[in-house]
Amino acid sequence: MSTLNLPFTPEEYDARLAKTRAAMNTAGCDVLVVTDPASMSWLTGYDGWSFYVHQAVIIGPSGDPLWWGRAMDALGARRTVYMPVDNIFGYEDTYVQNPDKHPMEDLAQLLAAQGWSGMRIGLEMDNYYFTAAAYMSLVQALPDAKWVNANVLVNWQRAIKSPTEIEYMRRAAKHVERMHATILERAEPGMKKNQLIADIYHAAIIGADGHWGDYPSIVPLAPSGADATAPHLTWDDSALKQGEATFFEIAGVYRRYHAPQSRTLFFGEPPAKYRAAEAAVLEAVAAGMEQAKPGNFAEDIANAFNATLNRLGFEKDSRCGYPIGLSYPPDWGEHTFSLRRHDKTVLEPGMTFHFMPALWLDDGGIEMTEPVLITPTGAENLCSTPSGLVVKD
Amino acid sequence: MSTLNLPFTPEEYDARLAKTRAAMNTAGCDVLVVTDPASMSWLTGYDGWSFYVHQAVIIGPSGDPLWWGRAMDALGARRTVYMPVDNIFGYEDTYVQNPDKHPMEDLAQLLAAQGWSGMRIGLEMDNYYFTAAAYMSLVQALPDAKWVNANVLVNWQRAIKSPTEIEYMRRAAKHVERMHATILERAEPGMKKNQLIADIYHAAIIGADGHWGDYPSIVPLAPSGADATAPHLTWDDSALKQGEATFFEIAGVYRRYHAPQSRTLFFGEPPAKYRAAEAAVLEAVAAGMEQAKPGNFAEDIANAFNATLNRLGFEKDSRCGYPIGLSYPPDWGEHTFSLRRHDKTVLEPGMTFHFMPALWLDDGGIEMTEPVLITPTGAENLCSTPSGLVVKD
Repeated sequence: MSTLNLPFTPEEYDARLAKTRAAMNTAGCDVLVVTDPASMSWLTGYDGWSFYVHQAVIIGPSGDPLWWGRAMDALGARRTVYMPVDNIFGYEDTYVQNPDKHPMEDLAQLLAAQGWSGMRIGLEMDNYYFTAAAYMSLVQALPDAKWVNANVLVNWQRAIKSPTEIEYMRRAAKHVERMHATILERAEPGMKKNQLIADIYHAAIIGADGHWGDYPSIVPLAPSGADATAPHLTWDDSALKQGEATFFEIAGVYRRYHAPQSRTLFFGEPPAKYRAAEAAVLEAVAAGMEQAKPGNFAEDIANAFNATLNRLGFEKDSRCGYPIGLSYPPDWGEHTFSLRRHDKTVLEPGMTFHFMPALWLDDGGIEMTEPVLITPTGAENLCSTPSGLVVKD
Repeated sequence: MSTLNLPFTPEEYDARLAKTRAAMNTAGCDVLVVTDPASMSWLTGYDGWSFYVHQAVIIGPSGDPLWWGRAMDALGARRTVYMPVDNIFGYEDTYVQNPDKHPMEDLAQLLAAQGWSGMRIGLEMDNYYFTAAAYMSLVQALPDAKWVNANVLVNWQRAIKSPTEIEYMRRAAKHVERMHATILERAEPGMKKNQLIADIYHAAIIGADGHWGDYPSIVPLAPSGADATAPHLTWDDSALKQGEATFFEIAGVYRRYHAPQSRTLFFGEPPAKYRAAEAAVLEAVAAGMEQAKPGNFAEDIANAFNATLNRLGFEKDSRCGYPIGLSYPPDWGEHTFSLRRHDKTVLEPGMTFHFMPALWLDDGGIEMTEPVLITPTGAENLCSTPSGLVVKD
């Protein structure tokens, strides 16, 4: 949490900036306003829970990025970004959640002061942290700018991970292995769900192999029984029950790098239908993994997965995966490609994704998912958690 | 996590809807598209970590609200909202994070099918979950609509809490008391920060008095030493140090209702400057609390607080509080009024706010903050955690 503790080398930040500028050039942007917290962090090192107010990293036609945000958070920027203090700009506190003015008016002044107000300016139009009001405010304040939709432009630059990023994800993968081991150790019929979640959180933050745990961009999803027909429910204090299944969609996190992995726990032998679903998913995942290699398309994984799954009598009508890496709430996905039909993204070594072959059946759900790395010759599961349903008697 | 387990009575949801419709009428909206997850939950009971994809609750001119979101999350809606299944609409999965189309095109079709496409439609223009692209997509798809900025319209309806909401916040307050007690018990010099955070999380999720803990909308903020000059840094595995201060900005949460409270921990006697800051903040808080009563303005609290603080030689240039209650990440504030100069919001019994008199000094920070309820005659601190700096030898 200080400039002495940047997660990456200056050379890596330089390379990221150069890569982003090349993409800006291709997209026709002279200036890029980056509001995605993960992209802000990836470009500058910035780290703090300040994305609930308007903030951005701005890449101009040359030079280091600028950090812009609430004045009190400029102090956090000073302690986390690599750029000199002259590149850090804080706006006055009365801009915060004030119906009479908008922080983007301040950003517009900053852009104008840099001489960029008539340039082609890229915006992340579909980012959580770039609201409709932010857009309207900026457009009104800078009438001479040409606006370019640069949504997920930086996210695409993040797709292929560096060796250090892969190392961080391997650490995160060890965390989630430990979290699943904790579930297996602690869960028992009669235990209240929140007690188990407390233990999972504890394991997550302790981490593994001496590497500390960071907070996940999505909290543990852990529905049981009929609630597991729905994918995104959290927890309460209901007791775990004999004969009931619970899925745990969780992630290990090291320095904001995520390794999500899910498993489904049964107390007692699962019904035949669930054993059939397990076998189908495992075979379909194996078919998908065979297509997970450089030069193939993202859709090749999905098509192989779905063909096998359908042949075995099951169906999944949602995408079966998405890229992962550095992220902040509310999502650990990178919002670029998806593992689904028609996605022609070419797989390259260093890409990482969450292979997400979840099935939500009429009376419950089954999730057995993996964090995967594309290698020079194929694909590697970053985790060694035993596959299949978890059965505890 | 089922319709049998709604957090509020049908009568309370009916009253909320009626109140919101009255506010829509005043604001000149026939239809309201609610994208704030807390407002969606407050209006319908909906609860799930699905706000990372586009979703909304829609209030039309009459009848129950509609829930609209990703098809897989419609299953979660069926299990958490009070409306009948006919009021729940799911969009196809290929809309998710697809540059070729936007989910708001599907919402536009739904609004048109209801016969609402030419009406005055309110939008939460500055909500995280209503992006610039969402707005552009909706406006393009419904050329006959009249658009109204209804930002925080529902949030204002949430300002005065019902007896059940206050009860939930009292439970959350007990959680955060327990979390601070855990810090005092466990923290010691040499302990790694993430180990302490793991213990805090464990206490938070276990809860207190038999009431389970939900996840907080902001993770624990816990910077030490010079990092505590910045307000929103999280944690790593640095060791806690003798002679160093750490502030803990944390919240207890019961069924999404938050009670945030901060304390600052010193190992060993704090320097004289921090004792002076402590005395000044406590006196200024007392002055502010005297103004916290029905009929006064929000700014009266801030003005009394700031006048006292300045007289005692300290300054705070940011707002000193904001309303709290039901929330989802990334913020536990309600985004309506602020405790700052010029805010003429009239205080009423049942309003709740986070009194946030944090000081960030040149070499560290001091946070001693409280969750407060406006009562018929004054104000009540929901927590009984001992006030002042926490000193552990």
